[in-house]
Amino acid sequence: MRVLVTGAAGMIGRKLVARLMQEEAIGDRAITALDLHDVVPLEQESIASAHVAIHVGDLSEPGEAAKLMREKPDVIFHLAGVVSGEAETNFALGYSANLDGARLLFHAIHEAGHCPRVVFSSSIAVFGGPFPDVIPDDFHTVPLGSYGTQKVMVEALLVDYTRRGLLDGVGIRLPSISVRPGKPNKAASGFLSNIIREPLVGREAILPVPRDVVQTHASPRSAVSFLLHAAQLDGAAIGPRRNLSMPGVAVTVGEQIEALERVAGKETVALIREEHDEAIWSLVQNWPTRFEARRARDLGFVTEQTYDEIIKAHIEDELGG
Amino acid sequence: MRVLVTGAAGMIGRKLVARLMQEEAIGDRAITALDLHDVVPLEQESIASAHVAIHVGDLSEPGEAAKLMREKPDVIFHLAGVVSGEAETNFALGYSANLDGARLLFHAIHEAGHCPRVVFSSSIAVFGGPFPDVIPDDFHTVPLGSYGTQKVMVEALLVDYTRRGLLDGVGIRLPSISVRPGKPNKAASGFLSNIIREPLVGREAILPVPRDVVQTHASPRSAVSFLLHAAQLDGAAIGPRRNLSMPGVAVTVGEQIEALERVAGKETVALIREEHDEAIWSLVQNWPTRFEARRARDLGFVTEQTYDEIIKAHIEDELGG
Repeated sequence: MRVLVTGAAGMIGRKLVARLMQEEAIGDRAITALDLHDVVPLEQESIASAHVAIHVGDLSEPGEAAKLMREKPDVIFHLAGVVSGEAETNFALGYSANLDGARLLFHAIHEAGHCPRVVFSSSIAVFGGPFPDVIPDDFHTVPLGSYGTQKVMVEALLVDYTRRGLLDGVGIRLPSISVRPGKPNKAASGFLSNIIREPLVGREAILPVPRDVVQTHASPRSAVSFLLHAAQLDGAAIGPRRNLSMPGVAVTVGEQIEALERVAGKETVALIREEHDEAIWSLVQNWPTRFEARRARDLGFVTEQTYDEIIKAHIEDELGG
Repeated sequence: MRVLVTGAAGMIGRKLVARLMQEEAIGDRAITALDLHDVVPLEQESIASAHVAIHVGDLSEPGEAAKLMREKPDVIFHLAGVVSGEAETNFALGYSANLDGARLLFHAIHEAGHCPRVVFSSSIAVFGGPFPDVIPDDFHTVPLGSYGTQKVMVEALLVDYTRRGLLDGVGIRLPSISVRPGKPNKAASGFLSNIIREPLVGREAILPVPRDVVQTHASPRSAVSFLLHAAQLDGAAIGPRRNLSMPGVAVTVGEQIEALERVAGKETVALIREEHDEAIWSLVQNWPTRFEARRARDLGFVTEQTYDEIIKAHIEDELGG
């Protein structure tokens, strides 16, 4: 089986590629060739292998996606795009990277004519408030940002291309992914990971919102598992509504901190400093909180049961256990 | 006030233009210039006037929309596009006319920088089954056709462009428009108008589905009123969710026929011949039936109260009373 990953150099992309390299299969289907695409070059040494091909280019440029279809990949993980902050500050880039990139890819798939499974990483940003306490799977998608708008548009395309048999799509709406590895970033949502990741390595972290803020989390490891599970699902079992809200662990920030204390002790938790940030707080109040995710659970998507497990996954995957 | 109508040669476009020409204003704002655009030339004699300019071109061609923005129209009615049947049979044309046309128009509006009111004619085709008995305003939009997909995508763009202050959009989701003037067409929905229009002029019409099929109808006259009302609404009163399901008269086909008998007598109704068409029936079962349309009603959109009124509107507008 030939597998293509777009956005392979991103956070989720790198973790997916590592897992594909390690397992050398998706389910019981062996991977015979792996195409990795991104706008930036991947670190080749970590993925050197006879069956891996690295491609550097911009999917929003006409002709780029067609090159990737020459070998007709059986499974395509479409992760490429810019993040929400960038889509909001750079209007044209957001539409170009997130909408045109996907549309040109789908068009190239149509032209290639082999109807591969396409797993698209969508986001809970497709939802806009006001929200009910628990967001049902069929909650309407009226996003409050350009990033969510672009995801909604690609979700719609994915359904239509699938309905017409041009590709076999599954969109997965990722919840908040934590604990994000790497340096603290300035994304408004950064604190959700910062308050765990930084204290675990002895550094201070700032909590800019009240402790009763609720978010739904899944680990990066779970995000990769979602993608791999989506690649193997029977399309008929999903039905025509191909975009699925993923499950996660819904906890308050206070519960995240309690979990951290259970896993790493009081001294670690003492490194979290509360410093209210009105700008972040005003954004956070518009974020979706809890999801029903019943369809995804029924289709076999699994994730952590507790935030403790999410912290332990981070310690195992990023801090050597 | 300068007004632009795209798709001005279409059924709704022509009726809107006639009303604008007659009233010479939208609400209390006088129309000083009227730009009429379509891919096909309009019949100039019927709209000859010093302040009317006719433009022929394709909005899906780069540069076309920019020409229409030179004079910075204050209100834009974006009606251009291909109909559902055509969007389904011609995949590329559907996306080009219905999605790219709107996107290029919105982009040109952004470039012009004057943030006009944009009234977009969307459709209840944004909804896909299975449906509840009454479709609420916040029902999720997962269409079952390419036309509905394109409308969903443009609705999302309209909201995002509005949120960013690049234009001031209102999307109106039109219900089934009846009684459609003109010749019987082969659209699957054609019978909904055919069974009224044809018998009224002494011709036979075929009813291809059971009499208990329910649809929500508004007259072409109401569709024009919706557009004009949308042009005058206070954006703040609408809020960020700018796409509104329009009200209509929800009746069974049997009730349509009973109304026809009340208005035109038994002999007229006798011209309807029941001849089941399995292909049409299978499509009709997936169509949305009743709508709540509470937001639209609260915002002052009004339509007929009974199907009798819809028939009488047709007789007045198309058959000289």
